Amino acid sequence: MSKIIEMLIRRGFLWQSFEIYGGIAGFIDFAPLGNGIRRNIEELWRDYFVVNERAVEIDTPTIGIEDIFRASGHLDSFTDVAIECENCGKIYRADHYIKEKLGIESDETMEAVLEILETYDLKCECGGSLKNPEHFNLMFSTTIGPGKGKRGYLRPETAQGIFIDFKRLIDYFRGKLPFGVAQIGRVYRNEISPRQGVIRLREFNQAELEYFVDPRNKTHPDFKIYSDTPVILVDKLDYEHIITLKEAVSQGIIANELLAYFIGKTREFLLCIGIKEDKMRFRQHREDERAHYAIDCWDAECLTAYGWIELVGIADRGDYDLKSHAEFSREDMSVFIQFKEPVRMARRKLKPLMNKLGPEFRRKAKLIAEEIENYEGEIEDPITLNINGEIVTVSSDFFEIGETEEEVFGEKIVPHVIEPSFGLDRIVYTVLEHSFDTDIIDGEERKVLRLKRNVSPVQVAVLPLLTREDFIEISREITKRLQSAGIFTEFDDSGSIGRRYRRFDEIGTPFCITIDHQTLEDNTVTLRDRDSTEQIRLKVEELEGIIKELLSSDGSILEFGEKFR
Amino acid sequence: MSKIIEMLIRRGFLWQSFEIYGGIAGFIDFAPLGNGIRRNIEELWRDYFVVNERAVEIDTPTIGIEDIFRASGHLDSFTDVAIECENCGKIYRADHYIKEKLGIESDETMEAVLEILETYDLKCECGGSLKNPEHFNLMFSTTIGPGKGKRGYLRPETAQGIFIDFKRLIDYFRGKLPFGVAQIGRVYRNEISPRQGVIRLREFNQAELEYFVDPRNKTHPDFKIYSDTPVILVDKLDYEHIITLKEAVSQGIIANELLAYFIGKTREFLLCIGIKEDKMRFRQHREDERAHYAIDCWDAECLTAYGWIELVGIADRGDYDLKSHAEFSREDMSVFIQFKEPVRMARRKLKPLMNKLGPEFRRKAKLIAEEIENYEGEIEDPITLNINGEIVTVSSDFFEIGETEEEVFGEKIVPHVIEPSFGLDRIVYTVLEHSFDTDIIDGEERKVLRLKRNVSPVQVAVLPLLTREDFIEISREITKRLQSAGIFTEFDDSGSIGRRYRRFDEIGTPFCITIDHQTLEDNTVTLRDRDSTEQIRLKVEELEGIIKELLSSDGSILEFGEKFR
Repeated sequence: MSKIIEMLIRRGFLWQSFEIYGGIAGFIDFAPLGNGIRRNIEELWRDYFVVNERAVEIDTPTIGIEDIFRASGHLDSFTDVAIECENCGKIYRADHYIKEKLGIESDETMEAVLEILETYDLKCECGGSLKNPEHFNLMFSTTIGPGKGKRGYLRPETAQGIFIDFKRLIDYFRGKLPFGVAQIGRVYRNEISPRQGVIRLREFNQAELEYFVDPRNKTHPDFKIYSDTPVILVDKLDYEHIITLKEAVSQGIIANELLAYFIGKTREFLLCIGIKEDKMRFRQHREDERAHYAIDCWDAECLTAYGWIELVGIADRGDYDLKSHAEFSREDMSVFIQFKEPVRMARRKLKPLMNKLGPEFRRKAKLIAEEIENYEGEIEDPITLNINGEIVTVSSDFFEIGETEEEVFGEKIVPHVIEPSFGLDRIVYTVLEHSFDTDIIDGEERKVLRLKRNVSPVQVAVLPLLTREDFIEISREITKRLQSAGIFTEFDDSGSIGRRYRRFDEIGTPFCITIDHQTLEDNTVTLRDRDSTEQIRLKVEELEGIIKELLSSDGSILEFGEKFR
Repeated sequence: MSKIIEMLIRRGFLWQSFEIYGGIAGFIDFAPLGNGIRRNIEELWRDYFVVNERAVEIDTPTIGIEDIFRASGHLDSFTDVAIECENCGKIYRADHYIKEKLGIESDETMEAVLEILETYDLKCECGGSLKNPEHFNLMFSTTIGPGKGKRGYLRPETAQGIFIDFKRLIDYFRGKLPFGVAQIGRVYRNEISPRQGVIRLREFNQAELEYFVDPRNKTHPDFKIYSDTPVILVDKLDYEHIITLKEAVSQGIIANELLAYFIGKTREFLLCIGIKEDKMRFRQHREDERAHYAIDCWDAECLTAYGWIELVGIADRGDYDLKSHAEFSREDMSVFIQFKEPVRMARRKLKPLMNKLGPEFRRKAKLIAEEIENYEGEIEDPITLNINGEIVTVSSDFFEIGETEEEVFGEKIVPHVIEPSFGLDRIVYTVLEHSFDTDIIDGEERKVLRLKRNVSPVQVAVLPLLTREDFIEISREITKRLQSAGIFTEFDDSGSIGRRYRRFDEIGTPFCITIDHQTLEDNTVTLRDRDSTEQIRLKVEELEGIIKELLSSDGSILEFGEKFR
């Protein structure tokens, strides 16, 4: 177990789920501090991707019915290739086991696996033969209701819950593009045999934004904020570029400005929560790696003890999802886009021939004539009409084709979707790993978690120097006051002051307040900075204001008051 | 469909899940406004039940393994009785169908259902016979991993994830009781045939606090805050009391002070988010209704269009869960409680008789002698020892019973758990229903949602009087400024000002800011109050401060500035 993981468990960031029952791979608990940091990161994400966009957040069920995943493609395509041992029955994920045993990076396709099994003598750990690879669907399935019930699946992404609400959402936004819809919540992936600890989970947390746009206008009014930022891009052919986002768009490396905008914004967000700039890059999916729904896709990857791992996927999903759901549900998923000015357009129009319709269709003739007059589809011979649910075909003998000029006010289009999708669990872990540090203080090694002030789960510790009633009372008062000001504050009176400083350094608490003898005399306390270990003396009544200012900046505490030591 | 539900769907509070695929009972979507109100309520809950207690929040998986639910009793006891039609195969929840068709309030037990089926001629809606009632387990089940995998269940409550982490948690709290552990998240109940719209859901959201205490000390230092509050209590014999919480405890109506404390706190919380006092009561579970784990249980019930419904359960779960998990996992779930002063105690102690052990047990004799010396269990004949995993019974021939006096520093106990458990979806619905109102403004009926300012999903609307560029620019600036101050603010320029006021009244927005001609001249705007429709004029630079003050109070806007009209 790595030093970091050991610390994360011991200090209460992350725990193995179901530990007392032996645990099971692919599940973790967010312990109190891990939960705190994840909540802080979620709040900041909302601020970036909901509040500061034309966007809203919704929350849809984690269980979905089969129709959704048939339309989305997950029933067919959300699979890994599994190989089973003929002897012991153990099942492996083919590409991972091939890489582990043979050192070969194989494709994830059935063909690739079959070829390798034919060429190499791959054996199970028990010595048995591995034959007959099969597609294994990675959705957890369940049954809704009693008896045979209805088949349900645990969602593999939050996005589908948004797509199937599209008609409601476009009404909510009063028909106007672009708009964004976000969702933060649990998603599931029934991994065959997850081994990478906190990185490859069967149940995890996503924050996704689905940004619906007019396909002819994949731009963003705020692109200028990021357009001149140089970023590290690894393109689909594996070439690395260090290039501004503007150039990357104009050179066609990134498919459009809106994708580039979200790459820039994602980068800013990751830096803001404490991901290291020199351990971050954006990698484009290769043609053979891209999901079935994506036009172009970029991953924000970060370097960790597990290698480069994907934290965020930024995809142009085109109109794949809306068109699919429109087809499977027979609902209209388009938007009416008004032209700037109405346009006069010549239009072919059908004119029913009543004298012919009458004898042939008799009582239905009138209804059919109306339908012919209003017909807006492709003009074929015959045309197909829906007369109150009955399908009627009418040959060109029964109508004439005329031409009229009409004023057209707009057109219907199916929006495209740009999707930044964040894996929150991996992000929390990476932030922790990138913050993990040691230094030498007073000749001794110190473990310190250099979390950014805005994500730290305990922002302030209030420490009475002695466990004397009067020290404790003041400390509790200060704790209460800071808590009600919305600052994550903890009171701690156990152990020597040095030991307490070390504990709060190790969990990344940026500031410690110490109540000492002088506090009783002049109502001042010391404020200690985690990184520099500098201390200043402050009046108790100034505390709240100064700490709030400090928490919203990276400023040094030495800007405030006079140096203490 | 009721007027309220119609409004909730139309305005974007709650939607039917999977609507484009025909929907399915028991699932709802939190649309943008419903999501906002639920998030606000969750934040307030955290403030009440985590920040202001000695408590932390954790987040554990929604999928659990079978061991957990075998120990918790859910595998055996979390069931409803289902009856199936012999003809059409339709399955009903027995007690609900019996009530619907026969008007009989039956017990939920198998025996009660059998008796009724024998007595009455209950038929399916198709006319077929309903026979052979069966227990149907209400947990959704799934399979973890490929092939046969491992059986998993979607959790029926968040609590179990906390109980199985108890050993980690007691370490986190450095061994000191009492402490609380909260969890907010999804839970599942595979209802047989849910019909009550938003009230009976298959997937819903809980906020639970598990408060671990020394069983001999079920008190709370803050009980005095609520002890003199009169509350409406309906006891387990169905008698209604209007009584202070202190009296209810001293008369033995409520089992202990800690339960009474959480009843008082729950009441305060529900009032704070906008539940009506005259539609709230606390009802004690009858003996036959109480869950298998509960010593005493009180529901906070509220009157809604669905009748009195349970919003919160406040249970004394005793040591049921910790003891069960200790037994099934063979882990120690006790806490060492230090005595105030060490106590000298006589103790019976076993002395091994080596001369007898030697011949009988030979090479094992020494190990057995050591175990006898350290034996701390019940002194029986024979005693049972565990010698490196092997179970050995040793009769009283092999030891003598002596007595020693020892200094004892404390004792091990299994904590009891008091649990306030909140159903967030029902709470959101009830808050909305209790806030739904109409009045007459300027001779016209107005729909208005009288949401409390602290839960309203849109707290401020910024409305340019005209859709002129200069009006819009100032409006957007104000919107941005309020948003970055953490106020939920929406900009809206579509439709007449009167129509916009009505829209924001209907979604419960407490304040509208209007930018008009005078704004361009003197940089003032109007602030309109939803309930009174009063308006005042304010300087733009005062807005943020005054709105923040208003949002944290119930104060009237007329306290600020001069009256506008």
